[in-house]
Amino acid sequence: MFLEKIKSQGISHLSYIMGDKGRAAVIDPRRDCDIYLEVAHRQGSRITHIFETHRNEDYVIGSTELAAMTGAEVYHGAELPFSYGKTTNEGDIFKLGSITLETIKTPGHTHESISIILYDSESGSDPVGVFTGDALFIGDVGRTDFFPDQKELMAGLLFDSIFKKILPLGDHVILYPAHGAGSVCGSGIAKREFSTLGYERLNSPLLQITDRDKFIKTKIQEIHPRPPYFARMEEYNLNGAPLIGKSHSPAPMTAERFEKGLRDGMLAIDVRSAEAFAGAFIPGSISIPLGMVPLYAGWFLPYDHDILLIASSFDDIDLAVRFLNRIGYDRVADHLHQGMNEWAVKGKNFDCIRGVFAGEIQKKISSKEKFTLLDIRSKNEFIAGHLPGAQNIFLGELEHRLSEIRPERPLITFCGSGQRAIIAASILKKHGVDHVENCFGSMQACSHTGCEIVKG
Amino acid sequence: MFLEKIKSQGISHLSYIMGDKGRAAVIDPRRDCDIYLEVAHRQGSRITHIFETHRNEDYVIGSTELAAMTGAEVYHGAELPFSYGKTTNEGDIFKLGSITLETIKTPGHTHESISIILYDSESGSDPVGVFTGDALFIGDVGRTDFFPDQKELMAGLLFDSIFKKILPLGDHVILYPAHGAGSVCGSGIAKREFSTLGYERLNSPLLQITDRDKFIKTKIQEIHPRPPYFARMEEYNLNGAPLIGKSHSPAPMTAERFEKGLRDGMLAIDVRSAEAFAGAFIPGSISIPLGMVPLYAGWFLPYDHDILLIASSFDDIDLAVRFLNRIGYDRVADHLHQGMNEWAVKGKNFDCIRGVFAGEIQKKISSKEKFTLLDIRSKNEFIAGHLPGAQNIFLGELEHRLSEIRPERPLITFCGSGQRAIIAASILKKHGVDHVENCFGSMQACSHTGCEIVKG
Amino acid sequence: MFLEKIKSQGISHLSYIMGDKGRAAVIDPRRDCDIYLEVAHRQGSRITHIFETHRNEDYVIGSTELAAMTGAEVYHGAELPFSYGKTTNEGDIFKLGSITLETIKTPGHTHESISIILYDSESGSDPVGVFTGDALFIGDVGRTDFFPDQKELMAGLLFDSIFKKILPLGDHVILYPAHGAGSVCGSGIAKREFSTLGYERLNSPLLQITDRDKFIKTKIQEIHPRPPYFARMEEYNLNGAPLIGKSHSPAPMTAERFEKGLRDGMLAIDVRSAEAFAGAFIPGSISIPLGMVPLYAGWFLPYDHDILLIASSFDDIDLAVRFLNRIGYDRVADHLHQGMNEWAVKGKNFDCIRGVFAGEIQKKISSKEKFTLLDIRSKNEFIAGHLPGAQNIFLGELEHRLSEIRPERPLITFCGSGQRAIIAASILKKHGVDHVENCFGSMQACSHTGCEIVKG
Amino acid sequence: MFLEKIKSQGISHLSYIMGDKGRAAVIDPRRDCDIYLEVAHRQGSRITHIFETHRNEDYVIGSTELAAMTGAEVYHGAELPFSYGKTTNEGDIFKLGSITLETIKTPGHTHESISIILYDSESGSDPVGVFTGDALFIGDVGRTDFFPDQKELMAGLLFDSIFKKILPLGDHVILYPAHGAGSVCGSGIAKREFSTLGYERLNSPLLQITDRDKFIKTKIQEIHPRPPYFARMEEYNLNGAPLIGKSHSPAPMTAERFEKGLRDGMLAIDVRSAEAFAGAFIPGSISIPLGMVPLYAGWFLPYDHDILLIASSFDDIDLAVRFLNRIGYDRVADHLHQGMNEWAVKGKNFDCIRGVFAGEIQKKISSKEKFTLLDIRSKNEFIAGHLPGAQNIFLGELEHRLSEIRPERPLITFCGSGQRAIIAASILKKHGVDHVENCFGSMQACSHTGCEIVKG
Repeated sequence: MFLEKIKSQGISHLSYIMGDKGRAAVIDPRRDCDIYLEVAHRQGSRITHIFETHRNEDYVIGSTELAAMTGAEVYHGAELPFSYGKTTNEGDIFKLGSITLETIKTPGHTHESISIILYDSESGSDPVGVFTGDALFIGDVGRTDFFPDQKELMAGLLFDSIFKKILPLGDHVILYPAHGAGSVCGSGIAKREFSTLGYERLNSPLLQITDRDKFIKTKIQEIHPRPPYFARMEEYNLNGAPLIGKSHSPAPMTAERFEKGLRDGMLAIDVRSAEAFAGAFIPGSISIPLGMVPLYAGWFLPYDHDILLIASSFDDIDLAVRFLNRIGYDRVADHLHQGMNEWAVKGKNFDCIRGVFAGEIQKKISSKEKFTLLDIRSKNEFIAGHLPGAQNIFLGELEHRLSEIRPERPLITFCGSGQRAIIAASILKKHGVDHVENCFGSMQACSHTGCEIVKG
Repeated sequence: MFLEKIKSQGISHLSYIMGDKGRAAVIDPRRDCDIYLEVAHRQGSRITHIFETHRNEDYVIGSTELAAMTGAEVYHGAELPFSYGKTTNEGDIFKLGSITLETIKTPGHTHESISIILYDSESGSDPVGVFTGDALFIGDVGRTDFFPDQKELMAGLLFDSIFKKILPLGDHVILYPAHGAGSVCGSGIAKREFSTLGYERLNSPLLQITDRDKFIKTKIQEIHPRPPYFARMEEYNLNGAPLIGKSHSPAPMTAERFEKGLRDGMLAIDVRSAEAFAGAFIPGSISIPLGMVPLYAGWFLPYDHDILLIASSFDDIDLAVRFLNRIGYDRVADHLHQGMNEWAVKGKNFDCIRGVFAGEIQKKISSKEKFTLLDIRSKNEFIAGHLPGAQNIFLGELEHRLSEIRPERPLITFCGSGQRAIIAASILKKHGVDHVENCFGSMQACSHTGCEIVKG
Repeated sequence: MFLEKIKSQGISHLSYIMGDKGRAAVIDPRRDCDIYLEVAHRQGSRITHIFETHRNEDYVIGSTELAAMTGAEVYHGAELPFSYGKTTNEGDIFKLGSITLETIKTPGHTHESISIILYDSESGSDPVGVFTGDALFIGDVGRTDFFPDQKELMAGLLFDSIFKKILPLGDHVILYPAHGAGSVCGSGIAKREFSTLGYERLNSPLLQITDRDKFIKTKIQEIHPRPPYFARMEEYNLNGAPLIGKSHSPAPMTAERFEKGLRDGMLAIDVRSAEAFAGAFIPGSISIPLGMVPLYAGWFLPYDHDILLIASSFDDIDLAVRFLNRIGYDRVADHLHQGMNEWAVKGKNFDCIRGVFAGEIQKKISSKEKFTLLDIRSKNEFIAGHLPGAQNIFLGELEHRLSEIRPERPLITFCGSGQRAIIAASILKKHGVDHVENCFGSMQACSHTGCEIVKG
Repeated sequence: MFLEKIKSQGISHLSYIMGDKGRAAVIDPRRDCDIYLEVAHRQGSRITHIFETHRNEDYVIGSTELAAMTGAEVYHGAELPFSYGKTTNEGDIFKLGSITLETIKTPGHTHESISIILYDSESGSDPVGVFTGDALFIGDVGRTDFFPDQKELMAGLLFDSIFKKILPLGDHVILYPAHGAGSVCGSGIAKREFSTLGYERLNSPLLQITDRDKFIKTKIQEIHPRPPYFARMEEYNLNGAPLIGKSHSPAPMTAERFEKGLRDGMLAIDVRSAEAFAGAFIPGSISIPLGMVPLYAGWFLPYDHDILLIASSFDDIDLAVRFLNRIGYDRVADHLHQGMNEWAVKGKNFDCIRGVFAGEIQKKISSKEKFTLLDIRSKNEFIAGHLPGAQNIFLGELEHRLSEIRPERPLITFCGSGQRAIIAASILKKHGVDHVENCFGSMQACSHTGCEIVKG
């Protein structure tokens, strides 16, 4: 019996492939699904089963893609009219060699959410592990806010799923959730990626709330980001996304063609590091440092435009394409040949954004300098602690709230570490806000250097 | 916090590397330790701690090698006079970012055996996992037969370690043992490589024996193989093995030079598949199919001879050298350029071994044909079930028990699947026993085809 | 300017990719064309041009596949009614950065054969290199036997192409042919894979024949193999082969399913080494050691059967699929899980072929033993030197000439080194010829050991 | 016969490995010589011969390192008292299978320079190729300025070597030089990396000067950079550099430890892109974008300091260490964990350098703004064309000519593309020159946008 966890960066999506005696099953595959074929091949297995723990909102599931490549059967919960795959219900049993998988219904995050129990028939009849999807994470539980008019119902369902169905499987059961730390599907997910039901029962903050009503009350007060691209993910994951097939890398283009693309309304996305963008960038381009593409691109990028990439290496371009494909952006056209250097040596105009360090901001504040400190973190983060006088507009809403920015004042973008803030800075620049600087280090640096921090 | 398991094929040795915030610790490294540097590098970590759960018998530990490369400190139990590293005692605490490690003494397999408890200081104060070395495996417990005059003592110590120190850590604790299925350190290890203390408590056969005396009785009746190379491993692992440094691949040699090497007393080891060896082999060479080198080479190969390799690819040669290094064979000279083809096209004599399938043996038995069916499995395996009339000489003892073989009769070597049997066949051939055939499929095939099987 | 040679094993096919300033051209791509995308990506180039030096006979060209992936334009000679691509004519010029390519017509191997001259516009106006397709090789010239009723015409055309168009480009011009040693497209191709027109003019045997009539006379006397699969290649390369797209590995199957496949008429191809096949093989399977698949599979394998593979590793299966795809076999079904071991442990019957070394044959000959020494090399090879009394049936014709074999005599298959002979042995076995042994080492071994060799 | 070219980036060093029938020779190996072992292994060869075409000045040769790993013999010219290896003289012959190598003396670049002729004994007696070291490049000839008091002698020797010994080998001979474009060993080397003696005879600018005196006159007028590190290379390459053995990656360090290292006098080298450095850098650090390390590090870096690295990925750190090792810097201590982000989030002060595009400079010039345009290219480059009013201080001399810079004026660093200029900017910043901006695009951009360019 083998079992491997496949982690997709950025969205911290965890999928699993397991198998025995030549057959394999995959739980919640991602869309660029070559990795599962590689593992199956290395393990000498044929992928025969694909399980979706629920209809995902934050990425395009790869079930149809993987099924097209392998002939495997796709299974999901019964409560949604999926246009592909089969329904699996409470108590369904699937056998692959010594592996036995059993479906249990664990609604709460969504209505059709299921969990899959893993047994090892060679060792005993107790469950070894459980794939909980977005019902139970390490250090957190699933979101229950996707049905705004059923908030209490969903929170109650989740309570029942966790406390009456999952935890009773036993303290000894290994927990295999669908997300790790950094996912938008849970704000308190632990950085450690291995745990058991028992460890979680003892240590996970929300599992300490064993009173159903109190649990529901806590859950319905939570605020979670809901990026606009979720709608497309939900549609794709209900009806099946277009197949991407053999993805090939976008080809290089000259500065001249790139410029023409921009004029023609294509979107220029710069996935270089925040510092490199600050050092020199193409006017009109949006900065999304590579690792942030999966989590933040869906907030700004329209789906009906071709995308041009600026990157510092070909490998980064490949990864950017994968990241974009995973959230449904398939119209990546081409990339700027040799990145910024091509742009600069062709004599094209570029812009830059001055970097500001924590000490400078502190000085500005204490000398009562007039400037806007634009904190673009989420409301939750802002409330938990921010610099005095900071204005909060969440990055995901910035483009729609530009009118709230005082145009006459110099502005410094600010976030947790300065990485998200550069995205905000690039958006402001694109919309003509010119006196923009960016604080590398941001909140973390301010904490380290002992700045005054305000809560609420 | 990251944690990766590194598995060494053949001996099913499991080592672990974990780290956080730029520092990492390794548990029981193997000797060809480039893999740990690779993981540490990928994770952006410096290896600062190396733990040995006990003085190993079945492979050369890589602590001194890895320490020489990284400057890390080596820690082991107190009850042996190691000539390197530091002693760690009950309750010692080591911190690497959010990782906290704690030493507990868990003697039984050896006197100085320790286990290392893993905590995640960011999540809670309960243990997350425990590295149990050879004290507790998945599906089995450690051997207690290494001190023949202290068998009861050791078994009792192990009982106490498991039942009074390890299991009480809690059902929810993840189990990280030092060996998986296939190791000589435990005959009942499960094929599944992930478990928890709770799952083991409920399902592991020996953990059902909760009576101390009964447990001891059971343990002292066990019979385990003790290959001659264990003595060298123990010496190396007490005093530190020679550093292998930058291992470079053995170079190719011509058939003429290979022949001269053989005449000069070098050992020719053929790591090709059993079928390829059977098809054509160099007279005097020993067959050890690549995957069996770690487990079986130590039974026959003297340490004071240069080794010549015959393989079917350069990658296999690399792996063979690693496998041999791991059990202390550092005198791998060179390899036959282009393998058997070079030998054949130079017109050198070769030999072959006819393969026999299960049905043929059945027919011979039922027609009372006179032949020796030499079952070279361990006594344990033989007793559990063998063909009627089979003679049992364990592969590891074959070279010393050649006189027990009736020279006048045709002989068929036989084992579990036919892979070990080819080793026996090659040894017999080397010692002049000529009427040798080999049963591919062996016991497994006989079971599948419904042969009569005798127990006892 | 970059230029990389891509060599396809087995058929010794040489293709080329070159580029400058973000654009690239490929000469004679193979069908599994991911490699060109990889190089282009690494070099930061977009493939814009694909050239076919001629309609190939010995492999499926990858032009349409690669064009589908890149949007590149395909160019070929004018004298055939290709159903895809564009025609290029004498003197056509193509520019990619500093690279200038120029078409010249060089018929002889085929009517529409072209060569492509390479210039470096940054260095001067002399040609740097020339891609000669199958017109001129290193150490040999192209075959002119594809139009049996125009043998003299074609040989004369080739003479003119070489002596009046290619060689006059200058001694200094680097030669980039479409095949290396081992190809069926030329029997005298040198093992060295780099040369110049000048070196060839001075040293290539056929280029010493500067008299046109004499050259023609020599060429029309040549005998070249013409495997049956050439017909399909020609059809594919005229009309475009089916796209293979994202090839995924065949999945593993059990011995039971494999057996059923055999019964259902599927073809079992065993790509393990000759020695491994000899050691144990599935009755009815055909041995084609992996490296020989591209060159020999096309002689026996019908195109209308599903193919089952037996291999010793997953990587070998991948390679076998590529090799088969390259010569148009797309119906590779699945492979035997864990190779022969799966077959043996399930108790299925297998067979073996005894290996014979050169000395044994010599002894049989000198003691006038009655046996058939079946030399399955080509007529050319046989005439150049064979053992006394050997019977010659070329491997490619064996299945149709089985009646020439004397059934009552023991038979030993024989070739250059024993590798092709095992294919013959497997075919004989499949057709019920049972007393078959195989001479590993074959002619090379006999030469080394000083056997008597007969010419003619 | 195989022959592979190994290119070392940055210094454009070309080395070669060739072999046949299990033995291989290497020409001018680099110091991190694992690559030769990999090729030899893949080709099934043992490296038995290492040739040094001359005592190199611009990198540490890997002969002793490679010899220590393989037991190969090292050969070099006779006219220098090397403390290792053997001498090879005119006409010496070395055979490896079908490869025959012959030494010819080709002094001029240095006194002991040799070239190695390559023959293929299977094809004919004409030379196939020649390894010319630094005597003859593609598009250029070797430098003859290393013995300032023997300039005419050396130039004359080189003329004789090229015109009387190398070119007479024949137009058809393939040229294998020791450097490609970008090397400091020749300013006119072509970007194309394949050529023949004939093509060079016809097209290489200096080979058109067939009059000995005129050739000498031309050569002695050449000005070549001679970085200070050449002295150490010469010493290492005469007496053997220290062995680097198994190089392991530098480990990560925190911002705090990095800061302490800086205070303790360690050198901080930032190998990120020019744009990233400009965006945010650690005060006191020197920018050397990764690809420029081999060519420019030797101008500034003292050999007696420990080096700290700032990079944007672990792979870049590995490459930086290789690059530094190749020019003798072995004291790479550690690197900043997670690069600039670690520095910023710890609240440490950083600095930035504003990027200027070509149009801005043009505007400044036309509006007669007062500023220093510091062109840090070589004198040769500057003379060939520069912006009006620019001040020229070659990058390699900048640290010693700081007094020439007018302190009161704003300053813009300028080079060919803006990549070298950032190094200059970082040096100026380190020495307290504060009003520094950098022109990305530099001369290339100015050419593209039609700025006025002054010659002389």
